[in-house]
Formats: sequence, structure tokens, C-alpha cells
Amino acid sequence: MGEFDLIARYFTRPVRPGGAALLGVGDDCALLAPQPGMQLAISSDMLVEGRHFFADVNPEALGHKALAVNLSDLAACGAQPLAFTLALALPRIDQPWLASFAHGLLTLADAHGCQLIGGDTTQGPLNLCITVFGQVPAGQALLRSGARAGDDLWVSGHLGDAALALRALQGQLALPEHILAQARQRLERPTPRVALGLALRGIASSAMDVSDGLLGDLAHLLQASAVGAVVDADIATTLIAASHGQTPGNDIFDTNPRHPDAQELLRRCALAGGDDYELLFTAAPARRQAVASAAQAGATTVTRIGQIQAQPGLRLVDGQGQPLARDYAGFDHFKAWEPVHALRTTAGSA
Amino acid sequence: MGEFDLIARYFTRPVRPGGAALLGVGDDCALLAPQPGMQLAISSDMLVEGRHFFADVNPEALGHKALAVNLSDLAACGAQPLAFTLALALPRIDQPWLASFAHGLLTLADAHGCQLIGGDTTQGPLNLCITVFGQVPAGQALLRSGARAGDDLWVSGHLGDAALALRALQGQLALPEHILAQARQRLERPTPRVALGLALRGIASSAMDVSDGLLGDLAHLLQASAVGAVVDADIATTLIAASHGQTPGNDIFDTNPRHPDAQELLRRCALAGGDDYELLFTAAPARRQAVASAAQAGATTVTRIGQIQAQPGLRLVDGQGQPLARDYAGFDHFKAWEPVHALRTTAGSA
Repeated sequence: MGEFDLIARYFTRPVRPGGAALLGVGDDCALLAPQPGMQLAISSDMLVEGRHFFADVNPEALGHKALAVNLSDLAACGAQPLAFTLALALPRIDQPWLASFAHGLLTLADAHGCQLIGGDTTQGPLNLCITVFGQVPAGQALLRSGARAGDDLWVSGHLGDAALALRALQGQLALPEHILAQARQRLERPTPRVALGLALRGIASSAMDVSDGLLGDLAHLLQASAVGAVVDADIATTLIAASHGQTPGNDIFDTNPRHPDAQELLRRCALAGGDDYELLFTAAPARRQAVASAAQAGATTVTRIGQIQAQPGLRLVDGQGQPLARDYAGFDHFKAWEPVHALRTTAGSA
Repeated sequence: MGEFDLIARYFTRPVRPGGAALLGVGDDCALLAPQPGMQLAISSDMLVEGRHFFADVNPEALGHKALAVNLSDLAACGAQPLAFTLALALPRIDQPWLASFAHGLLTLADAHGCQLIGGDTTQGPLNLCITVFGQVPAGQALLRSGARAGDDLWVSGHLGDAALALRALQGQLALPEHILAQARQRLERPTPRVALGLALRGIASSAMDVSDGLLGDLAHLLQASAVGAVVDADIATTLIAASHGQTPGNDIFDTNPRHPDAQELLRRCALAGGDDYELLFTAAPARRQAVASAAQAGATTVTRIGQIQAQPGLRLVDGQGQPLARDYAGFDHFKAWEPVHALRTTAGSA
């Protein structure tokens, strides 16, 4: 099977009449027309084997995640998904793998009315690059730079489960099977908060998505807005779904001899774990009711984890308001230099 | 140096006021606003080490080429370049390499007023994915599907030099140094025919860019237009710049003991060599003067190499109109399966 057959078989779909995409896969360019008065929001993410996923990843889940992480960026801007391109380097043509990957990818795309309009395929070490396009009314995009002193600091959904699952899959800790299954779902099939992002237009003063870890990402928002923040680490840590909202250190970890300090592990996962794909946003305290309504429209929970302050810097406190000194750096693709390639994905293997 | 420093140092530039890009590198999404009445043309290309370039490629040339191949797709649609995103997987952070790569990339970008508005960087086997955005007045994009029986078949500039240089660098043939230097320029620093593409709006009935070899690409245009064509192989072969327009088999090859059949080699390079990044287009015979003017506006030559016919299929003839039976398949990234990784880039090494 050649390159052209591959595109035709797995990735070509008719352009939907009346949509923003006017010309899809098969010409030199795709053509896209946002509605009048709309700006185009664009984001690009590259996923590399051994870095963002394991070689034996479920291809259907990989297809889902590759698009989900891009849709999460559109959500963070309050943009409505329109279309995407896919560039794919494959070491070989494995038809069952491709069929499964395409199924995961296009099922999520269809759920968001986001059309695959073009791309590229080539031979090479497995690499997926998706560029996604959304539209947002001129001037209404949610940016990182709008946070103001006194604003509430919010985060959607859950934090830390993906990081917890990754550590379990890496053999760093053992989790009960049903807990691992739930956390793994968050790692492999993140839910982009598109509807919440749309609902937060005109309500949130700033927004971004949490992909590299809460505190590391928050630092970028604070820098872009030239403000500081105080964050309640205990509240953030209760957002780990696998901990059932209990105080850190609950029984799922107590029995684990590898983790003398379960509380610290959970806190690290929640504050700096990465791969959450939740929305981190700010809004004036007067908009709390509006934020609650937006959360309902977005079919997700939102939690107030702190407050924006004029003084630059990020201050971490516990539930009693006591300062926490620990440094929880976010994930940086060039600092976190561990040899992921060598890692096994079987839960519990060391 | 972490991921964020890398982006800041090499790839962040202020957004140009008054341009289509409203928000560049640094937020979750970039924002782009095509002018009213314009459609957005989008193309994405992925370049992989060992497949599209050698490990010891000049990074400045690589930066140029990575964008050039994408601009060539915009040219083929008659679109005006606006902006692009860059996703980059790097095995390690090599600052001199990155500085040189960024210089080659951004110099070409500046020459076309095409702004880098976003992207991604990660660790992994070297891989570059660029997605480029251009604008074209609604309904005026040049497509592959508009060729009609009786149309002239044209190609811009030169053909085959990149393929010739690649074979020389692979040690398959020896070229005089000044000839190799000239051909290598075409391989490593292709010139996207953006101005020609813009000038051909309303003149060409169909267009595409020649990236995978003339005949293989032409087959896609013929299929999209449901027509056939006759192509004069001898005229096409004279488009090899390194042959100085002479009859194939000229003296630069006569002295080469590795090439008993220099004419056949040149013909293969011109007809199926790939990496040309020229425009292949059709226009009614009544538009020959307009095509000549467009070529002048595009600062390139154009050559009539054949004619579109109603009968499907591609018929190759020589200068005397005699049918040529040889099959010149285009380059297919999954069919051309030679182990490029193992190849040396020193000219003349076997």
C-alpha cells in the first residue's frame, strides 16, 4: 500500500456541505472559510513515541488523545473547533493499527464537528503532528494575559490522575486494578473541555489548558498577566479523582510499601503531574454564579483553588493557609530527560 | 535550556501590526484573521531525517527547505502566504544548529511576509512539521480538478536537477564540482513559485506543485480532472538546468564510466526525480500570452510540455512524437523503500 492509498483508505472523508471546510484531503491545500466576523484560532501539537506515549499504546486511544490535546488548546481560547490537519510519520504500514488509530481520531473529531481536511504521511519514527483550527468572535478569545489581582483562580474537572496512572504503568507504584483503570482512562483518553471554554467567553478574564502540570502552566499565565497568585495545595490535591476526594494518604496508598510518603506523591501528581487537559482560568469574584453556570453548560465541575494577587510569584499554601516551600516544577520536554524508551507499560513491573 | 527558553530564543518574534496574524507564539492558540472575502488555504508537510534530508544537512538550508516545500503548496493554489506553525522534534538541544536552522527558516519567511505564529517543540528523532496558511479570494483558488481537453500543459522553471544532485550525493554518479553545486542548490534551497501562483489566478485552469516527480504528480492532476494528457519527454528533459538545455547525453556525462546510458538517467531525473517544487499547470491555448505575462510577473520561465486530452491516461512521446513505453513512476514515500539512512552525503563516495 502506497502513501496515496493509505490517505484514501483511512483519512479521506467527504467535505461536509455548509461547513467551514470547503476543500478537504486531496489537493495541494485545503480551503477553510471562518464565518464573517470570526477569527481563526490555531494550535499545533507533536506527539512522539517514547516521549508522549509508549510503543505498545492502544492505537484507538492514541488517535483520541492526539486530537484531544489539540482540542484542549482550542477550549482554552474559547474557540469552536472547525477542522484539523494530520501529519503522520510511520515506521511501517500496519493496517489494523491504522484502522484503529483512525477510528479513535475520527470518532472524537465527529463528536466535535471537527473535520480532517489535510495532512501528510511519510516513513519515519512514529510521530503525530496535528494542527487544529477553531473560530472565535473577533476580540472574544480567552487569553493568558487577562488575569487581574483579586480574580478567583479556577480549575475544571480533575488533576493528577494521568500522572498517577503513568507512574503505576512505569512500575513506580502499585494501584488496585479498578483505580488504575479509572486513572488510566484520564491518561489515555483525556476529555477536552471545549464546551466549558465556549461557555467561559465573556466570563473568564484569562484561561489556558493544564497540560504540563498545574503549577508550571500557572506560572506562564501569571507571567503573561504580570500578576502573582496564592494556591491552596490541599484543595488542588483533592481533585485527584482516584483519591475519591479524600484527604491525601487514603487507604489505596497506605498498603503500598513503595510509598512511605503517599501524601507527597499525590500532591506532586496534582500540582505538577501533567497530561491533565483541564482548563485553568481566572474570573472576578462577582462572576462566581456565571462560572457555575458555565461549568454546568460544560458538563464538568470547576473548583476554586486560589486567588490572583498583585505581587508577582506563586505562593503555595496548605489547607490551614500555611506556606509550603516545596518546588513543584512543571514538566518540561527538554528538562525531564529520563529514558522513557526503556520503560515498561505493564502495571507493577519495576 | 528548557523547551520554553528554546521557543523564546529562536522562534518568537513580535506579531507584525496590521497583518493577518493577531496573536503569535506564547498562548494556547495563535489567532489569524484572513481579510474579508478571503478563504484560508492550508497545507502541512512533515520532513523526517533520513527520509527527506541527511543527518549532516546544513541546518540553514534545512530551515529554508522546510518552509519552501510548504510555500510551494500555497503557490500551487494561488494563495498569498500569511503565517505558519512549526512543530519540531529534536534529539538534543544543539544551539548553533538551532540558530542556523531558525535563520534559514525565518529569512525565507520574511521574504514572503509569512509569520511564525506558533508550534510545538519536543524531544525525539529529528522531525519537522510545518503547517502553512495563505489567503485566496473566495472561489479563485487554483485546483487540480480544472484541466480540460485541449488545454496546454505547462511547467515552471527547471526539472530534475534536485534528483541529479541527490544521485551524485549518494555516490551513484560523479558530477563536475560546479555542476553539482548548481544542482545541489536546487535540492537544498528550492524556490517556491509563490509569485507565479498568484499571477496565474484566473489564467490557469488547474495547477499543482511538482514535489514527487513530474509524471507521478501529473497523474494525480489528470485523475482529479478526469482527463488524459500527452507529454513530450524530450522537452521536459531539456528542463534540467545542469544539462544547459542541451540534448540529453551531453559531455558532462559522456566521461562518466558509471553511466553508459546518460540520456536515460537524465530523462528519469526530469520525469520522475522529485523535489522540484515547480508549478505544473494547465491553461487554454488562447491564454498563452497571459501565461507568458504571469511567468514574467513570477520571475521564472514556463515551458509547454504537452497537452490535455479527453482520453484518460498519460501518453509519453519523444521529440519526434514517437510513443515512449518506459514507466516513470513518481516517488512514493512508502514505495521507495531504499535504506536512505545508510547513505553517505559525500559526493563521489560509493
